[in-house]
Amino acid sequence: LRLACLQFGPIFGQIDANLAAIRDRLPAGEADLVVLPELCTTGYTFADRAELESLAEEIPGGPSTEALTALAAEKEVVLCAGLAERAGDRVFNSAVLVGPGGFVGSYRKIHLFDRENRIFDPGDRGFAVFEVGGVKIGIMICFDWFYPESMRALALSGAEVVAHPSNLVLSWCQRSMPVRCLENHVIAATANRSGEEERAGVHHRFTGASQITGFGGEILAHAPEDGDAWIVAPVEPARSRQRDLGDSPDILTHRRPEFYR
Amino acid sequence: LRLACLQFGPIFGQIDANLAAIRDRLPAGEADLVVLPELCTTGYTFADRAELESLAEEIPGGPSTEALTALAAEKEVVLCAGLAERAGDRVFNSAVLVGPGGFVGSYRKIHLFDRENRIFDPGDRGFAVFEVGGVKIGIMICFDWFYPESMRALALSGAEVVAHPSNLVLSWCQRSMPVRCLENHVIAATANRSGEEERAGVHHRFTGASQITGFGGEILAHAPEDGDAWIVAPVEPARSRQRDLGDSPDILTHRRPEFYR
Repeated sequence: LRLACLQFGPIFGQIDANLAAIRDRLPAGEADLVVLPELCTTGYTFADRAELESLAEEIPGGPSTEALTALAAEKEVVLCAGLAERAGDRVFNSAVLVGPGGFVGSYRKIHLFDRENRIFDPGDRGFAVFEVGGVKIGIMICFDWFYPESMRALALSGAEVVAHPSNLVLSWCQRSMPVRCLENHVIAATANRSGEEERAGVHHRFTGASQITGFGGEILAHAPEDGDAWIVAPVEPARSRQRDLGDSPDILTHRRPEFYR
Repeated sequence: LRLACLQFGPIFGQIDANLAAIRDRLPAGEADLVVLPELCTTGYTFADRAELESLAEEIPGGPSTEALTALAAEKEVVLCAGLAERAGDRVFNSAVLVGPGGFVGSYRKIHLFDRENRIFDPGDRGFAVFEVGGVKIGIMICFDWFYPESMRALALSGAEVVAHPSNLVLSWCQRSMPVRCLENHVIAATANRSGEEERAGVHHRFTGASQITGFGGEILAHAPEDGDAWIVAPVEPARSRQRDLGDSPDILTHRRPEFYR
């Protein structure tokens, strides 16, 4: 599997322009699964909930999901991209998974970060794993990484590859993903955005440095902190299932949940 | 709190000599809580279960626990030390916590590593937190670090400081402890042994590099890979309780266990 991240800096509120930017920057024929950043069509720094609601779309059915599905068919890739999702009177920080065959599924961010807690609804469904072309793909979004339970839940649900759309503003995630991948024997692609946003008195500088991490904790590819970047690494999802460690059995079956309260 | 690790290389099977070595190497008046390595009175590479049984002792009541309790009183410190524990016909890879006031408690290793699975019984009680002098001390042993559930269970039980006796033979733990401490906002002292053992056709080279890690993931003190070492760092256990992160509430109450299966 050729696993890739497309790092760029969306322009706040310019959904059509951001979709065009993704289309322009996405190479054809170079990857099988491409992860895009969190909230990659809207930008991140919403002034308030009303502004977020005005930019959020239904999943599936909304124009961004439709455009990404068409793009996946055109470039013959599977895409995982972060989008603001409107569902009735609720708004989620979500990610969609779409492929050449159409819409596959979505995930609603479970662990909201900082002021996201004031404008988004927290995810109301579990961590999701989808099988596409024989590969089991789990999704988590940005700050979900901080909670070891996130990737653990995905691994226990059979994820081999974790797509991790992000808008990171701190530096800890990239250093920590080797631990997340090692402890679950799972491959991850953290697609972070670059650039800055200054809106409604809030300044964010995003830390770029998108990263593909192997199931042994090795960093397979990484991007610069600034600017656009395309990184790709060949990975072997099926090998992530071989989880024995010396005379210890499969690291996941060696868990002892009766003591984890 | 002055938190310390005493790193050394026990001589296999020489319990009295190892207890004497600990006594000789333990400074008086320099620390409040001192963590010693896993299996620090027996050594690690037991030929088989019978040999392990011949060296294991009752906890409390066995001579090693008695000697360590006397040492804690003499040097006016709290000690956490790894010992082989015999309990009826079972044998555990355990750790004791003893202070100037006597025996405090013990922990039986829950996640056995590699060939330990063949000679020890897995821990049959939960992760334990003990309050000594107003500080809440949790215990985990060596490979327990690999399972994020270990330190999470301790943090959820109120641990401020995690004593982590170890006999590490790989290099991952020391790099990963900053993630463990950060994700739980807990302080840890990983006391690893040094030296090599070659017994019954098995060779172990222990990786030393004992480490004290702060609740922000910062490495506060670390030892060389080889030889004896004494490391100490001043820490503020009560501050580990301040677990908010921006507009995110306490990182532990922000967990969403309904989605962790």
